[in-house]
Parts: sequence; structure tokens; C-alpha cells
Amino acid sequence: MIKKFLCAPGPTAVPAEILSEMSKPLMHHRTPQFSNVVAENAALLKQVFQTKNTVLTLTSSGTGAMEASVTNFLSKGDKMLVLSAGKFGERFSEIGKAYGANVVEIKADYSKDIKASEVEKALKENPDTKAVYSEYSETSTGVAFDIKNIASVVKKTEAIFVVDGITAIGAMEFKMDEWGIDIAIAGAQKSFMIPPGLAFISFSEKAEKMMKSANMPRFYFDLAKEKKNLEKNTTAWTPAITLFMGLNYALKMMLEEGLDNVVQRHFRVGEAFRNSIKSIGLSLFADIPNVQPSDAVTAVKVPEGIDGAKLPGLMRDRYGVTIAGGQGSMKGKIFRLGHLGYVDKSDIVVELQAMELAFKELGYKFELGASVAAAQKYILEKFPIPNVELSEAGD
Amino acid sequence: MIKKFLCAPGPTAVPAEILSEMSKPLMHHRTPQFSNVVAENAALLKQVFQTKNTVLTLTSSGTGAMEASVTNFLSKGDKMLVLSAGKFGERFSEIGKAYGANVVEIKADYSKDIKASEVEKALKENPDTKAVYSEYSETSTGVAFDIKNIASVVKKTEAIFVVDGITAIGAMEFKMDEWGIDIAIAGAQKSFMIPPGLAFISFSEKAEKMMKSANMPRFYFDLAKEKKNLEKNTTAWTPAITLFMGLNYALKMMLEEGLDNVVQRHFRVGEAFRNSIKSIGLSLFADIPNVQPSDAVTAVKVPEGIDGAKLPGLMRDRYGVTIAGGQGSMKGKIFRLGHLGYVDKSDIVVELQAMELAFKELGYKFELGASVAAAQKYILEKFPIPNVELSEAGD
Repeated sequence: MIKKFLCAPGPTAVPAEILSEMSKPLMHHRTPQFSNVVAENAALLKQVFQTKNTVLTLTSSGTGAMEASVTNFLSKGDKMLVLSAGKFGERFSEIGKAYGANVVEIKADYSKDIKASEVEKALKENPDTKAVYSEYSETSTGVAFDIKNIASVVKKTEAIFVVDGITAIGAMEFKMDEWGIDIAIAGAQKSFMIPPGLAFISFSEKAEKMMKSANMPRFYFDLAKEKKNLEKNTTAWTPAITLFMGLNYALKMMLEEGLDNVVQRHFRVGEAFRNSIKSIGLSLFADIPNVQPSDAVTAVKVPEGIDGAKLPGLMRDRYGVTIAGGQGSMKGKIFRLGHLGYVDKSDIVVELQAMELAFKELGYKFELGASVAAAQKYILEKFPIPNVELSEAGD
Repeated sequence: MIKKFLCAPGPTAVPAEILSEMSKPLMHHRTPQFSNVVAENAALLKQVFQTKNTVLTLTSSGTGAMEASVTNFLSKGDKMLVLSAGKFGERFSEIGKAYGANVVEIKADYSKDIKASEVEKALKENPDTKAVYSEYSETSTGVAFDIKNIASVVKKTEAIFVVDGITAIGAMEFKMDEWGIDIAIAGAQKSFMIPPGLAFISFSEKAEKMMKSANMPRFYFDLAKEKKNLEKNTTAWTPAITLFMGLNYALKMMLEEGLDNVVQRHFRVGEAFRNSIKSIGLSLFADIPNVQPSDAVTAVKVPEGIDGAKLPGLMRDRYGVTIAGGQGSMKGKIFRLGHLGYVDKSDIVVELQAMELAFKELGYKFELGASVAAAQKYILEKFPIPNVELSEAGD
């Protein structure tokens, strides 16, 4: 028996309470009972997105919501500016090209981000830009984009600002309305702690105005139709009912903890990872001045001379810990420790100990236990002591 | 406490074993373990579809697969012939129009179907037709289209034949290859006994040739990309993992029972409903010469002078049995007793007794128990006696 831990940057571990909630007898989706769930989820999602705008729930992966953020707001030939420094930024460009947008990219190396000043320059050179697309947490590189400052730049133009917050929203500070984000996207299987199959998308009034004249074709991902249905507490198509039930439970867990506490927890867990790996000679992929790492996933460089492509398999098959390798051209060059959703202090230790054991097998030289001890030190010093009354042992 | 039964024409009741299977700890989708599930599901789905073609699984409702059956095979301006006699036939037209197809409809009243001879005539008048779209079981009216004969007509032309089998496949006889169906679509929350969130689509070589030149835009529902991924036992996007697990269990249940037995069971349950309702003066919506009723759902006319719109709510809220009312213009005129997926003899009685009780409240005059007794008679006479050894009572 090998005890298993899902520590990928998504899908993430689902708490047993939520699995249990989703295994209750199925209810029909066109009933007052399910409408209550739809309405409650929509209200709670607004709190997570920090918005007064409607937040729609789509039955698809996050990519479906990314497609919707293009096809519902642009017309063929419209100029979209894509900030691209990783696999998911590239996906926005692919979607734009598939639907006939005029895609202009600002590209940076994987491990970097795109700065607000570069966006400002590009918007001056491309004053006909209709929409700017950015990652918040680029899952493929572990880099956080400075979307708050980018938003303040885009806000001054006619363009809308679209943020893929699939691994970020619910893990990192996100204030859709205050920051002036026009379209925000999130995904179920990340900080929302439920299995994959749902994506969330919200849009501002400025974006909704563009929607009215946008002529790209859409049907399954027709957001105007979904919004009209949500006003009647229902969905346009048959929704993934069990996932809606799980989401309801998860949102209540998140908001009972308090969104600030959720964000603080992710920050501490992320910082603990970033600090601890250094103690065995590893370094962050995003270890570059003025590049902010994501708190949801830590991308680590594979040390020289080590066969990094083998690390995730070893950790999973020998030590039960599923993390993620590098994607595409990053394969074997980085690995990614996920830490979002249902994560706490203990997960740091679980991941690091397995990583150390696997690295020993791969022949990497370091002092066994050093990163784990560094994490323990961080936990003692930086994590708040839970405010619970202690019971007598054995009571 | 009111004991609940989900007896809609989808979503359908999910067996407790499957709910339990889906509540196991989540696994990551890019692992050998999950690839085994993907590969096994794909092989088992071929058996259900009776095809040598690939069957793809999409994370979406059935409507997503309907959209894919248009956008992956047609170019803008291509002529599509839609056989339309209900809400889901109409949906094909809506999708075609949204993506710029040249939609030609053969329309019939709700409660009727479109005959192969009419299709033959329309194809002669429209020799440039690229694809013919039909329902198999039109869920909104309870009518089964004669797709076998329609296929033999379409086969003689250059056009491909697309069948929405969302409520039919897995419930009614379906031989994709033998009948010459080019594209077949099915949905998880119907005879596959799992919660909504997955759709299935398979296509012939003739269809795949059209796919290569089809220029309608698509990204999330890109079937060529999905097929390429399935060849590597994976999916293009993050799949609804728990539903894939449930599907695996469900497919094994279906194939262990034997596809012929599954179809026979649905036929007998359907026929029992059709016979039994007559004994309390009710009649089928599709009670028209040469119109074949669906074995998955029985649409019944609301008797004169009765407020039929109230029936589903009464059955659900007072007697725990969720059925479906009429959709759109059919609201209050018909109601629909679902009987597909995890259904057996007992479900006939459960639905009919609740329907009778609700009708009494609505003031409809009939002999209480008459439809239930008719169903019991049908069960005694027509259902096979299970081949099990009887144990002593109390043993």
C-alpha cells in the first residue's frame, strides 16, 4: 500500500467531505432545489471574485471559459493583445487565431512575465486593440503577472482586460472590481477543491457592451444566454450537477475560513516552499529580479546533470506524491510543486520529503532532510498557532 | 421524509455503486492509471456504439457534442439538412445558423417524425447537401425516428448522416456501422447512468474526410485534436475525472448485462408504460399511425380540462417522483415519463402510482390503481423470470 497525495497545480486534492457531498443521490437540474444551489453558488462566487458582476458557471474545463472570453467579446479581425510567457498565455493566442482575431503578442521567455510598461507601450502602438489577455498565475512557469498594474494601464484605453485566473483566483489576492478587471476566469479543480468539469467567468459592464456587437460565432459557450438563464437561477444546458453540489460545499468552506485567511494560507505555504528548496541547493525557475512567483505553484529548476523528467514519476509511483513536470519544451528542465486548494502546513512536508527521497534515487547530492527541516522552521516561525483549546491527551 | 426517485428522461438515477465509485480520492489525469481508464472507456464505448470508429468523450453537456458535429465537419455556407420535429431537432438548426451554415429544414409537427422518403425527396431537391441531421429519440416529444431507413437513403449521396442519439444510444438498438451512421452522439446522464457532464461522439471515415476541409472555427470542441490525444490515451483538455471513473463502472455494468439485454429491458419497460396508461384513459402524444414511440421516454397527452402544468410538481413534491413536463410550447399539454438507464420493472409501478395520485388531486376521473394493475399484468406476462436460485426465507 502506498498512501497517495495529489499535489499537482490542478487537479487538486478534493476533501472527503466534498466527495461525500457529491455522492448524494442525483437531483434533477430543473427543480426549485437545484435552482437554490445555482443561486447560492452565484452569490458566493461573487464574493470570491470580489465583484458585483455576474459570475457564470460553465460545464467545461477552464479552456472552455478561455474560448468564451474570446468568442463572446470580439469580432473577426478584431485586434487582441496577448501577454504570452508560458503555455496558457499561448493558448489565448491559439484560440484567437482559431476564431479569426488579429492576434498581437507581447512575448517573454518562460520564467518571466510582461510588465505594465510594456503593455502601455504596445497599446500606444496598437490603439485599435479591442482586448488584452493575460495570465494571473501562469501555471506552466509558476510566475505571477502584475495584473493590478496592467489593469490600471488598460483601463485608460477602450480595450477590455481579460485575466485567466484559473490557478490564481481563490488562492491569491484578487479584486476584480477594485482593480478594474473586465473579464475574469477561474477553474473548479484548482483552489475550489472540486474535481474538474466546471469553469467560471465574470465580465464587467464595459465588456458586456462589447459583447452586444461581437460577431464571432458561439453556441455552447454563449454567455448572454447563460446570463439570461442565471437570472432565472438555472443554466442554458444540462449542468454537471454533482460538481455544482460539490462547489456549493467548497465555496462555503472557503468563505467560512474567510477569503483573506485563504489567501494568507496560500501565501505562507508558497513562501515556505520557496524558502525550503534553497536549503538543498535548488532554485526557483522564476528566480529573476522583479519577477513575482505564484503562490499556487512553485516551479523549480532541475539541477545540472540530473534526469529531471523522471522526478514526477518517481515521486508518484514510489512515494505516492503526484506533482507535475515541465510541459512542452520545459519537460525535464523544471518540475512544479502544486500547493493550492485544500493545502496546509503538512502538505509542505509531505511534498518535500518525497522530493528529497526521489532526488536521492536520481543521484542528486544534498543533505537528506534539510529542506524538510527548513519547512518545519518556517512553520514554527510564520504560521499562526491555531486558536483552539487543547484537550487532555486521551480525553 | 419523502423518498425520492429520479424518473426524468435525463438526468437519470445514478446507482449507488457508481456514486460510490466517483467519490474515491481524485487521481491526476496525466498518469498511467487514468490513461488506463481513458483507453478502457474508449474500447467499451465502441461496443455500445457498435462501431469500429473512435468514440471521443467530451467534458460538456450533449449540446457541446451537437455543436462539435456541426463545426468540425462543415464550412461556412455549407448546406445542412435538418429533420426537425421537436426541441432538439431545432437545436441543430440553431447551431448551424450560429456558425453560418445554410440550414434547410424538413419540419413536422411535434409528435411526428420525418420519413426516409421525405429525406430522399429533399436530398434530390438539394443535391449540394453536405450533411443530414436527425434525432434518434426526440426527447421533447417521445418520438423515435426511423434512422435505419433514413441512413440507407443518405448513404447513397455525398452527404454524411448525423444522429443525435443522446437519449437513445444505450437504450434502443443502435448499429452505427451496420446502419451506415456517419456521426453519432450520446450523453452521460441518460442510459449511461452517470451524472451530467460528459458527451460522446463518434465519426466515420466519410465524415473524417469532410473534417479535413471543414473551416468552421472550433477550439475547445476540436475533434481532430481530441482524436490525436485519445490515440495517446489522454484528452486534449483537463477532463471531468470523476465522471470518467463513473463511466468506466457504468459501461462495465451495461456490457456485463449484455447490450441486447439492455435494449430488451428498455423495450419492455417502455411498452409497459405505453400499455398501462391507456387503462386510465390516457393516450400517447405520439399515438399516430406509423409513428414509433421512443423506448426511453413516454410522452403522454394531458387530458382535457386538467391543469397538466401542475402534474410534475405535484408528483415530485408530494410523492417524491421527478418526471418531466412539456418543454416550450408543449408546456401543460404533455408530460414525459422517463425510463432509461438504471430502470427496471419496479420503476414502472413507482412512476404510475405517483402519477395516479397526482391526477386524483388534479380532479381527473379514473379508477385508482388501474394503470398500476395493468403494469403488474404486463410484468407477469412479458418480463423474463430472473434466472436466480431462490433461498429459503430467513436464510
